[in-house]
Amino acid sequence: MSHSIDFATNNAQYASTFTQGHLPLPPSKKIIVVTCMDARVEPAGQLGIGLGEAHVIRNAGGLAKDALRSIVISQRLLGTREIAVFHHTGCGMLTFTSPEIKQLVKDAQPGNTDVAAAVDAIDFGPFSELETSVKSDVEFLKGNPLLLEGTKISGWTYDVTSGKIQQIV
Amino acid sequence: MSHSIDFATNNAQYASTFTQGHLPLPPSKKIIVVTCMDARVEPAGQLGIGLGEAHVIRNAGGLAKDALRSIVISQRLLGTREIAVFHHTGCGMLTFTSPEIKQLVKDAQPGNTDVAAAVDAIDFGPFSELETSVKSDVEFLKGNPLLLEGTKISGWTYDVTSGKIQQIV
Repeated sequence: MSHSIDFATNNAQYASTFTQGHLPLPPSKKIIVVTCMDARVEPAGQLGIGLGEAHVIRNAGGLAKDALRSIVISQRLLGTREIAVFHHTGCGMLTFTSPEIKQLVKDAQPGNTDVAAAVDAIDFGPFSELETSVKSDVEFLKGNPLLLEGTKISGWTYDVTSGKIQQIV
Repeated sequence: MSHSIDFATNNAQYASTFTQGHLPLPPSKKIIVVTCMDARVEPAGQLGIGLGEAHVIRNAGGLAKDALRSIVISQRLLGTREIAVFHHTGCGMLTFTSPEIKQLVKDAQPGNTDVAAAVDAIDFGPFSELETSVKSDVEFLKGNPLLLEGTKISGWTYDVTSGKIQQIV
């Protein structure tokens, strides 16, 4: 099967000069970055994260709630003590409502009640204002008893047109 | 608040030479990469993903099930037609069982029934064998009616000691 990105060729070049096979499992900086899956987001370069330094969780929007399973694993098994949440300008999450996306899926398979039930069970979590969504996610994490006590939590925006971040919380 | 990684300084340097502010929202290669949050995983470099080319979803393990919300948004709103799932050697998901991590969280707040209920509600999804977990995730996606019909799905492993990938499915 051919792929739209030639992973095998690209990776062979990467592996030919790879020298960091000794890095341990726990992130050396004890930090988690939560950010969006967006194609214009590239955390390592944009935030200066070195290999082995941070856990990076990415999902549609960079939603803290959707990252909770991963955060608990990161903290309880690997001792991370800090979480930085990044949402970005031009995010797809600003462009739809939950009823709209659910209807899109249902319309593709009309009359399929299994599909309707499965899509209705998903909390898509779109947001309408960027800084509000960042603050809301930070609040969600600050009040969450599943996190390690004393976890440092910050909230940021990333501007896809300028490449610049800004700390909000 | 100081951070264990100096995002502000690192990003100022990145933004000072940033020239890709024109990139559109949809990923140009119409592909989704699902991979682990692990600090030793760095998809852009390891797989040769250019800025703007692919959605990248990352969670503990690179679990397809946990990525489903994001995949539906990616496909229905932004037209991605291919999904590549990567799991990696030395993954934290190979090191624990669900009862173990739930007990860790409960033991930190003994007697707190809210915490116990919240952590019991999480499907942590550890796995015991790498290639099996890749195949299982590919099967999960292939049978999922929420995906666009005809989506190309592949499964891979990444070796953190050699930097090399291998296609499994």
